[in-house]
Amino acid sequence: MASSRPSFSDRLLGASEPERKLARFLYEPVAKLPIVSPHSHVPAELLADPEARLDPPGRLFVTGDHYVLRMLYSRGIRLEKLGVRPLDGEPAEEDDRKIWQCFADNFQLFDGTPSGLWTAGTLAQVFGIEERLSGANAQAIYGLLAERLGSADFAPRALLDRFGIEVLATTDAAGSSLDAHRRLREEGWGERVRPTFRPDAVTNLGAADWRKSLETLEAACEREIGDYRAFVEALEERREYFKALGATATDHATESVRTERLSEREAEAIFRRALSDEVTANEAGRFGAHMLWEMARMGCEDGLVMQIRAGSMRDYNDELRKRFGTDIGADVPIALDWSRGLRPLLAAHGNDPRLRLILSTLDESTYGRELAPLAGHYPALLLGPPWWFHDSPNGIARYLDSVTETAGFRNLAGFVDDARNLIAIPARHDVWRRVTCAWLAGKVLLGILDEENAVRIAGELACGLARQAYRLSDRERSDV
Amino acid sequence: MASSRPSFSDRLLGASEPERKLARFLYEPVAKLPIVSPHSHVPAELLADPEARLDPPGRLFVTGDHYVLRMLYSRGIRLEKLGVRPLDGEPAEEDDRKIWQCFADNFQLFDGTPSGLWTAGTLAQVFGIEERLSGANAQAIYGLLAERLGSADFAPRALLDRFGIEVLATTDAAGSSLDAHRRLREEGWGERVRPTFRPDAVTNLGAADWRKSLETLEAACEREIGDYRAFVEALEERREYFKALGATATDHATESVRTERLSEREAEAIFRRALSDEVTANEAGRFGAHMLWEMARMGCEDGLVMQIRAGSMRDYNDELRKRFGTDIGADVPIALDWSRGLRPLLAAHGNDPRLRLILSTLDESTYGRELAPLAGHYPALLLGPPWWFHDSPNGIARYLDSVTETAGFRNLAGFVDDARNLIAIPARHDVWRRVTCAWLAGKVLLGILDEENAVRIAGELACGLARQAYRLSDRERSDV
Amino acid sequence: MASSRPSFSDRLLGASEPERKLARFLYEPVAKLPIVSPHSHVPAELLADPEARLDPPGRLFVTGDHYVLRMLYSRGIRLEKLGVRPLDGEPAEEDDRKIWQCFADNFQLFDGTPSGLWTAGTLAQVFGIEERLSGANAQAIYGLLAERLGSADFAPRALLDRFGIEVLATTDAAGSSLDAHRRLREEGWGERVRPTFRPDAVTNLGAADWRKSLETLEAACEREIGDYRAFVEALEERREYFKALGATATDHATESVRTERLSEREAEAIFRRALSDEVTANEAGRFGAHMLWEMARMGCEDGLVMQIRAGSMRDYNDELRKRFGTDIGADVPIALDWSRGLRPLLAAHGNDPRLRLILSTLDESTYGRELAPLAGHYPALLLGPPWWFHDSPNGIARYLDSVTETAGFRNLAGFVDDARNLIAIPARHDVWRRVTCAWLAGKVLLGILDEENAVRIAGELACGLARQAYRLSDRERSDV
Repeated sequence: MASSRPSFSDRLLGASEPERKLARFLYEPVAKLPIVSPHSHVPAELLADPEARLDPPGRLFVTGDHYVLRMLYSRGIRLEKLGVRPLDGEPAEEDDRKIWQCFADNFQLFDGTPSGLWTAGTLAQVFGIEERLSGANAQAIYGLLAERLGSADFAPRALLDRFGIEVLATTDAAGSSLDAHRRLREEGWGERVRPTFRPDAVTNLGAADWRKSLETLEAACEREIGDYRAFVEALEERREYFKALGATATDHATESVRTERLSEREAEAIFRRALSDEVTANEAGRFGAHMLWEMARMGCEDGLVMQIRAGSMRDYNDELRKRFGTDIGADVPIALDWSRGLRPLLAAHGNDPRLRLILSTLDESTYGRELAPLAGHYPALLLGPPWWFHDSPNGIARYLDSVTETAGFRNLAGFVDDARNLIAIPARHDVWRRVTCAWLAGKVLLGILDEENAVRIAGELACGLARQAYRLSDRERSDV
Repeated sequence: MASSRPSFSDRLLGASEPERKLARFLYEPVAKLPIVSPHSHVPAELLADPEARLDPPGRLFVTGDHYVLRMLYSRGIRLEKLGVRPLDGEPAEEDDRKIWQCFADNFQLFDGTPSGLWTAGTLAQVFGIEERLSGANAQAIYGLLAERLGSADFAPRALLDRFGIEVLATTDAAGSSLDAHRRLREEGWGERVRPTFRPDAVTNLGAADWRKSLETLEAACEREIGDYRAFVEALEERREYFKALGATATDHATESVRTERLSEREAEAIFRRALSDEVTANEAGRFGAHMLWEMARMGCEDGLVMQIRAGSMRDYNDELRKRFGTDIGADVPIALDWSRGLRPLLAAHGNDPRLRLILSTLDESTYGRELAPLAGHYPALLLGPPWWFHDSPNGIARYLDSVTETAGFRNLAGFVDDARNLIAIPARHDVWRRVTCAWLAGKVLLGILDEENAVRIAGELACGLARQAYRLSDRERSDV
Repeated sequence: MASSRPSFSDRLLGASEPERKLARFLYEPVAKLPIVSPHSHVPAELLADPEARLDPPGRLFVTGDHYVLRMLYSRGIRLEKLGVRPLDGEPAEEDDRKIWQCFADNFQLFDGTPSGLWTAGTLAQVFGIEERLSGANAQAIYGLLAERLGSADFAPRALLDRFGIEVLATTDAAGSSLDAHRRLREEGWGERVRPTFRPDAVTNLGAADWRKSLETLEAACEREIGDYRAFVEALEERREYFKALGATATDHATESVRTERLSEREAEAIFRRALSDEVTANEAGRFGAHMLWEMARMGCEDGLVMQIRAGSMRDYNDELRKRFGTDIGADVPIALDWSRGLRPLLAAHGNDPRLRLILSTLDESTYGRELAPLAGHYPALLLGPPWWFHDSPNGIARYLDSVTETAGFRNLAGFVDDARNLIAIPARHDVWRRVTCAWLAGKVLLGILDEENAVRIAGELACGLARQAYRLSDRERSDV
């Protein structure tokens, strides 16, 4: 039956030859475009140190990837066996080859998943390995990967060039010193590697480490934060500092969407209760809702693009959180009510031409019901790409199917890879580009889009929209 | 690559030649069927006056179309520039050619949207212009459109013939005099143009203009409405009056779905509080829920088909509502709970063979979860077609995919175009017909439907089901 | 146009020849695999009595099938006419041929529905009738069916062989004597026909017949159940009894998902209030949430696989429930919140390697948002197949599209037919197998799955996963 399958280079481009032919025509120019990565979790330190190297294969592809951890854990494999060290110091697998072998032995679990596609894509595109990973070839492949990852050609900065990454934004706490970013800037990488301001740790008064995060913020600002007014000023200062080091955006992760305008007095009272450790969950919720409103206000004033990523119950599995900490693949989405939740923020700032607010969700039922109608009306709003669990071939197709008819293409913010792992960036962008081109080809074949417009839109989805949405082009920045 | 695209006449009929061939076979007879339009917002006055003409192109395609307004506004174009006049009398663009030019300059924004398809379809089907609208050809096309729209051939009544519109229902406030409908009836157009009874302005006690609407109703009934009993009687009278002038249906727009049976005493008390301007939001909500229940009761008695359109937060953008009023494209959907919300109404009337209740939603997640199971059980219920944001190729396919397996085809109410603009009616029906035929062709190619049954169903979806659902055929009316 | 349609034997395998060719290649071996049916509502009594015969055609295909009843009722056909007898003894149609004729006359209503496919499939696969059912051929087909159904070849046990049913699990109340299962076991059918423990009637303190169900449980245990402690012990005993008679699973139907750990004292207090008939709806709800938690605890201890089927408002139509009782097609789904609802249960048992919990829903919006992320993380969780209204070609495709990218294939529990009617089992499995093979073929053609892996996954979806999920293989049972 081999004849019916596409060649590897045609993967994801369509299920029949006429579709593939047209999708290939759209994809070929797009594949050569630079990578714009306005939202990632790559540590800036990696890029600041010219001598740094990525982790070895096991840590890189398994221990550090919460998508991979969750799937293996779901099939009964203990996290310790995957190299995740318990917080109490109990042992975990240290032999990187064994971690990699365990992944390879279980690679079938990733059939049909984005992790499977990204891994195969990375092995092929970055390392030239088109063979399917298996228990049998695991050690041979390990050797190859480990050698390359240790070489100067694969140093993080070299990878930026190798991958054609035009710009990469990291995600940084409000209290971060941004030392790595300062060094990058001094060495001329400041246009290319940029910080993003993420204040969640200090705006969420109910967070376990809130006090510690506040102290870090105080240290960063070199001032005491004894009341709400000082808190707001500190955040405003930090935003300016981030901006000076190249930031164009802020990032806000929330469980549910709720925005609210507290009076100065209420905000002050709640903040003081937090300082004296008496804040209730309800007060913390209201304060968080208020801070989203404030962040939009600041976004109007300083021109930083605001991103809201909503709908994840983080660290849902308490037992694992206590044992291993956060980011080990135990986050679970919930339903959202964007329409009611955002209304106070939009009432104040939604018609302000200076605001730009990019929304991402894990609740796909809100794509067509709430997000596309909102983005298709408010000048301030753009829709972020399918996020996390939905950054996958079906997820991308559902997203485009659900939002473009109501919001069009120009109300989309393009693609973000959200990667923690630099090595995965090309494969993630490639899946997006292939799937969007196949989807556009389908619309051309249906007579919904002209070929000429499909060509243009394919390029915009690949990087043009992201550049504009995140104010990464000179023109965009001067518009503010 | 031009060979892979369908010809313009094959648009939407399928992405491959075998699909298109079969879809074309289903579509050709269906394309010739008359248009049945049981729910529109076309003003009856336009049709009552033989000398009336449609607006010129800019006002017709842009200023008066809230789908177009919202998209252009979302990209930063002020509504004033699109000819929307602020309520306070501040100026707006008056040059119709400039309004049209702005639309044409930004026509790319409508790529892949129903507005784009409807515009292209209308230009082609009604005006014979297959060229894609652009900034460059805008003025030439304007000239052509303006000339035609001013001619007697394009007078509203002439368009009813030209478009093959068998019946067109308008939407009219409970207190409307229906003068235009009376004139139409006197001139023999009464079977063809019919009013629809929409009492929302008086049943929603919390509406800003409630008192004014009530006074209009009092004037129409020539009676004072000083208590709840009189209010109910007035509505019953008006329903009879609408029916006498050809109405077969009522229409009810609600934010959330909630039905409830108040006692006469409670209803009376709340109504009196509204009269003395003391009603709370909660009371108004309960009263609205009660009035839906009452409307179903009246529907059992007088045989008017009841339509509920639920789930839109109207005039979501307060700032724009204050500046421009309603219907300027700032409505946002919310999640619905039909199952719990409708239960009281269905408990009382759902098994009554006299009731017909047609449900429409903006929350697609309720298609398969609630609406299809309800319509696939209750004799009284039918499902309205995909509504508003979802009246689009993907929206139609999602609707059919989600509801037909559970509700079948005979529990659907066919198509309604919901058009404000008479000129758009053929293109809207044509998109529906093309997409339903392509969808049916897909089912035949999968072996799910026989070709013979697909032919029959295509015709039912095009107009047969709507005729029956809205009791527009003689047989249906005599059944009541 | 006949050439474009697939042959009957290719139905559901794809809409184009290349898809069909590959799907056929996947389907052919899978079609020959045995049927594993771990969740059905077939009465064990039928199988226990070698002389038993299935009902005649009308009762079998119409009166006893709530999917068929609901559709016919929705189009105005009274249930009495379909042979459903009112509880008050009023007459219903007794002539089985007339019931069948009514179904045949209205068979068009089932176009495009799973009931239509299952009926056509059963007539073809089981009775060799490929002609489409219609009013005209109804009586001829009736004669054929009635003759076969009365013959020894179609005795229930003979059908298990004829259909290649490897194992069939019934659903049995906690207080059931399991006499039929005991007889089956004595005659050597115990490995093949197994009971399932369903305690809803006694754990739902608010059920109308709760007291009666409790008495039946008391009789079955031969003990008085005067307090909560005795109640829990009785359930533990019954689970052991079920297990001894071959049960491998328990089944729990709930309206909303809510789990909670009550203190022993609270549970005791609420149980006593139920005994004295004073329990409130809220207390009953909390007790039910607590009993789900307890069932998971017991599942850890005794190794019975736990199934939760959530989201159906049972017997929604009060009038019909009063007149005809339950299970007549008047159940309506509601939205669910799995993430918050299951959290207490998962916090206690979700990481326990002994627990297995299979989740099914009628709220498809939770597939990708909640269920796949949960199953893709927790070792205890597996996802049940599309259920009830969604066990259909589109429903199956939506399910696979939504869950496999996040949960993979190994976190799925395979297929269950949920059939009340033994005769329908092959057609239901066949629709699942055809649609899954067509879906997998699509993934191969897109380059997402290797052909080799698609072959393996097709077999797992057909029966391997169900065998493992329900601990029906020897290996699985010894693992516990």
